[in-house]
Amino acid sequence: MATGGGAYKFYDKIREALGVDVLREDEMECLIIGLDFFITEIPREVFTYSETDPVQFAEPRSDIYPYLLVNIGSGVSMIKVSGPRAFKRVGGTSLGGGTLWGLLSLLTGARTFDDMLGMAERGDNTTVDMLVGDIYGTDYGKIGLKSSTIASSFGKVFKMKREAEREAENRGGLTNGDPVETAEQEQHEKFPEPVGPPFSSSDISRSLLYAVSNNIGQIAYLQSEKHSLSTIYFGGSFIRGHRQTMNTLSYAIKFWSNGEKKACFLRHEGYLGAVGAFLKRQPQNWGRRGSFEEGVGLGTEGRANFRAAAEDFVG
Amino acid sequence: MATGGGAYKFYDKIREALGVDVLREDEMECLIIGLDFFITEIPREVFTYSETDPVQFAEPRSDIYPYLLVNIGSGVSMIKVSGPRAFKRVGGTSLGGGTLWGLLSLLTGARTFDDMLGMAERGDNTTVDMLVGDIYGTDYGKIGLKSSTIASSFGKVFKMKREAEREAENRGGLTNGDPVETAEQEQHEKFPEPVGPPFSSSDISRSLLYAVSNNIGQIAYLQSEKHSLSTIYFGGSFIRGHRQTMNTLSYAIKFWSNGEKKACFLRHEGYLGAVGAFLKRQPQNWGRRGSFEEGVGLGTEGRANFRAAAEDFVG
Repeated sequence: MATGGGAYKFYDKIREALGVDVLREDEMECLIIGLDFFITEIPREVFTYSETDPVQFAEPRSDIYPYLLVNIGSGVSMIKVSGPRAFKRVGGTSLGGGTLWGLLSLLTGARTFDDMLGMAERGDNTTVDMLVGDIYGTDYGKIGLKSSTIASSFGKVFKMKREAEREAENRGGLTNGDPVETAEQEQHEKFPEPVGPPFSSSDISRSLLYAVSNNIGQIAYLQSEKHSLSTIYFGGSFIRGHRQTMNTLSYAIKFWSNGEKKACFLRHEGYLGAVGAFLKRQPQNWGRRGSFEEGVGLGTEGRANFRAAAEDFVG
Repeated sequence: MATGGGAYKFYDKIREALGVDVLREDEMECLIIGLDFFITEIPREVFTYSETDPVQFAEPRSDIYPYLLVNIGSGVSMIKVSGPRAFKRVGGTSLGGGTLWGLLSLLTGARTFDDMLGMAERGDNTTVDMLVGDIYGTDYGKIGLKSSTIASSFGKVFKMKREAEREAENRGGLTNGDPVETAEQEQHEKFPEPVGPPFSSSDISRSLLYAVSNNIGQIAYLQSEKHSLSTIYFGGSFIRGHRQTMNTLSYAIKFWSNGEKKACFLRHEGYLGAVGAFLKRQPQNWGRRGSFEEGVGLGTEGRANFRAAAEDFVG
């Protein structure tokens, strides 16, 4: 059983290399089956997060519909789930993990996503972001913006870079057209080194992590409003249990909803699709499968056994 | 009369240097007064845009409320306008012009925004963006995604860069620890040059322009839904009459609203606040001011005269 883009892209390779049949399952359906299973069956799986109150586990529950799943991988899909296997992709954004990884691999020396998250943790975004206070010198209280609110991500960079470049040009201008130039100077002019204030990789990483997470949080909130969904689950390989990411997503949902909605996270956020594909192809009367249809389930004991096995399975 | 962040930031400087009083007007209020004036009074000002049907002017009209103004400068403000001088900032995003200018000044050699737009015009975003087709090899028809849809902005960069780096490392490994090294090689190892496929500045510019514009378009659409607003005006210094930007914003609104809503642009998009500040402080019985209050206006002739003067004023 396989799902996701790889199930299609590597279909032939997997069959040839391993000599097995590959059953390709629909990605969205598997995500939802996996998520439903985690929400309803696994204790200490779903949690909310805030800086002051880090991990608060929610009890497994059965009255889970409707809800919004925000799956963050390279890109972001937002899926409205209205019942078991009843779902619709209502939106998404191309600004996801791939955007953060791609831009930071170009802008910093980081070679892994964990390096990037580590740098973001040490960084200070206010050296590159333009805050409301940088523009107005104070809060813009009339419209409810605090001076610490980010007005423009990377909004300080262009101006500071231009100023540094102009300064360098002016210094060059002092020679006043004097043709006495060394070979080195000539070389330098043909291939000008990048000039500019040294923006730190950590600060850049933190700014971009904030920008991407905040943006996903805002769009998720707006989609949840449009579709009247009060619970928002975040899953996918982007989060990786990283505190800053979860904090930013939680803050965005809280901020935009005036505290009325909460972001929910999962311990096994990266495995929704895989677990869903696994569960989907079990025999009708096996384990969890039965519990979808009322009265056909395994009963309390069988479900407990299955739950124990499943907990082993997902590590 | 002055408005915007600069009116506060440079208040003392302007007073000292010019020896004048500075009347600081609220930015949002001025934006709205300026926009109302342009929409209701100036012919050939408001237009819609698409690739096939570039500039379609709308007639000036008086039944304009309610509407959404999306003002794109360094950051983005979204303002719900429900009547003359009745408005509320309902949202915004920190991913605006400042983000595009800042990131592109770090990633490309561009030194002005017009350079960046020029590069974007020549670029091909599919070398850096991951499309739905790159993931699934085809459309993902079941959930309505075309293969040409951007799944992840900059989604190809990280993987391609890592592959190139690994290749370079492997080539380095071929020397097998052989200690015969020139000074040049040693130098090279201490300060490794950035390795990776050469992502073109034009492609990067186009990808980021798409990403920022698309994102603003989606959030604007969702805010217009939440607040039941059918007309969306885009203003601010970001657009600059640039075709790709307007096309992307228009496409986003059309796509998300299933063709039900349209993006409106303005010929004098960058001057809403300045014109609003100018109009706000005219004597009560002067020109346009009167036309706000029914029966106190200048009459048809006076308004026509004022309109002519105003058209000169805004160039």
